Amino acid sequence: MRVLIAGFGTVGQGIAEVIGMRQNLFSSEFGQKVEIIGAFDSSSFAGNPRGLDPAELVSQKKTSGKVGVKRADDMVKLIGELDYDALIETTPTNVVDSEPGLTYITTALNAGKNVITSNKGPLALKFRELCRTAEKNDVQLRYEASVGGAMPIINLSRELLRGEQIYSLRGILNGTCNFILNRMKDEGLPFEQALREAQELGYAERDPTYDIDGVDSAAKLAILANAIFGMNVTYHDVTRTGIRNISEEAIAMASEQNKVIRLIGEISGNKLEVSPRLVPSGHPLSIGGTLNIVQLITDLAGEVTVAGRGAGRMETASAMLSDIIAILTDEQAKCR
Amino acid sequence: MRVLIAGFGTVGQGIAEVIGMRQNLFSSEFGQKVEIIGAFDSSSFAGNPRGLDPAELVSQKKTSGKVGVKRADDMVKLIGELDYDALIETTPTNVVDSEPGLTYITTALNAGKNVITSNKGPLALKFRELCRTAEKNDVQLRYEASVGGAMPIINLSRELLRGEQIYSLRGILNGTCNFILNRMKDEGLPFEQALREAQELGYAERDPTYDIDGVDSAAKLAILANAIFGMNVTYHDVTRTGIRNISEEAIAMASEQNKVIRLIGEISGNKLEVSPRLVPSGHPLSIGGTLNIVQLITDLAGEVTVAGRGAGRMETASAMLSDIIAILTDEQAKCR
Repeated sequence: MRVLIAGFGTVGQGIAEVIGMRQNLFSSEFGQKVEIIGAFDSSSFAGNPRGLDPAELVSQKKTSGKVGVKRADDMVKLIGELDYDALIETTPTNVVDSEPGLTYITTALNAGKNVITSNKGPLALKFRELCRTAEKNDVQLRYEASVGGAMPIINLSRELLRGEQIYSLRGILNGTCNFILNRMKDEGLPFEQALREAQELGYAERDPTYDIDGVDSAAKLAILANAIFGMNVTYHDVTRTGIRNISEEAIAMASEQNKVIRLIGEISGNKLEVSPRLVPSGHPLSIGGTLNIVQLITDLAGEVTVAGRGAGRMETASAMLSDIIAILTDEQAKCR
Repeated sequence: MRVLIAGFGTVGQGIAEVIGMRQNLFSSEFGQKVEIIGAFDSSSFAGNPRGLDPAELVSQKKTSGKVGVKRADDMVKLIGELDYDALIETTPTNVVDSEPGLTYITTALNAGKNVITSNKGPLALKFRELCRTAEKNDVQLRYEASVGGAMPIINLSRELLRGEQIYSLRGILNGTCNFILNRMKDEGLPFEQALREAQELGYAERDPTYDIDGVDSAAKLAILANAIFGMNVTYHDVTRTGIRNISEEAIAMASEQNKVIRLIGEISGNKLEVSPRLVPSGHPLSIGGTLNIVQLITDLAGEVTVAGRGAGRMETASAMLSDIIAILTDEQAKCR
């Protein structure tokens, strides 16, 4: 399997490293190598049809800030013309027009390549179009890494729970908000101070809007609605309230009732909502820390809950690895 | 796909009903029917090579106490000689000699049939022998329902986390114990009273030893050790302490430290242990209720947690359904 990596930030470097680390697994379980035949970032390209060394790519990026030495003139042209089997797309999420990821993904699918992406933007805005393009070209579009990092919610619901009727879903889809709410409760901190702490620890961005106003959660919820419930929605269809106005008093009052406040995303019937909710202590969704967690409500199994680390270099790479393996398994099945 | 159901108690009836309910799914997704060509309980047999009506089987069992009208003289002979594709084995767990399930499963595997079982006994005592028998006959032995009911821990770890190195595991594997510990905490009840309540609600058996002394948890832990970590252990290899001696004082002291007591099963290195542990509130393993929950600690993803209802007619049937679908998917892959 030959892959091209688009975007070489934290996630791109992580998946390159993981591909290097798992060569034994690929050869012992699937009898093949996974070769990186190219990688580009916003200003450079490295390519070798016989495969690049993942460790060298990462080291080159770390020392020079660029993955390659060449200027990357037209990345879309490269995606369309290079000889490879799967595009690993890790460019930054953009919820305004979802570029450049949208064009990269579409170009690869139309060139008959499988795509594995960690990028929420295109999936939260153009899900059905992308699925149709993948189907038309008889290739796979896989996106486990786009929701909840290492929490295997997409493949769990689409593969392991294939026999269930899934009625509804609720979950904590943003670890930063959960960290802030938890610090407010445990230490009695006001919102602003808990937010500053999250920023100092690197959980929240300098501009925290994307997290604390629920944009990130809404984008993930839209992807889940499309992927699990077959809806055709964008993140604009999600009713959204963030945690900016949660007071210390509200948290203390919840505590007195043995409850916690959590930013919950919910899909139920036509309802698509992200908002702060009261959750009883001991309930699966009362978990603290920066984990992401989703509870699916199904007809036979009842509630099935899955939790995992929602972000991080290796965690996101882990989700992309599970997609690589799914494609290898599928190829293996086709060859038997 | 033609199935024979061995054992027609709660679980056997549940899976028969679910097979009836999911015929549309089987035909739309896999282009085939799943037909029950026979079912037996401890004293009777019902069979029809052209398929039995699941609803009639369940109704027959409910009204007469027997699934069939014929006496079932030699069920082992039937398992070996009937024409079917998969044995669905739901006889009661027996952790002394694992019979009759062990003989049923072995006979079916040696007759070249796939086996789907919910029965912990054979897997907690003879795991490697059974796997070898399945391999030798080139058939599948699937057992998602044997651990944690509808919690999809086996297929999650073996399929979705196939790319991870799983270092260790800990979890709550017995809902009855969790219910008792939670009632002791929430209501300040002494152990005996919480146990009586669990018995009245039908969560605990008249003889509760199997649950509260950790035998059930240890059997499940042994299965997970074999299935996920490739060990070769029986439930006798699990160091085991139950919850019989947990005092109200211990629970209250834990509460003061913002912790709860949970009966935790752990696999780590060569350690196989079931024992009561202190768990901080907000930790995934602090959940209340009767859920089962398992946390896997892996190299890339970090902790991945999955929870679900650990018992129940439809819940266990749901796990067996996921195994039926896995076999159908595999057949579909082979035919492409």
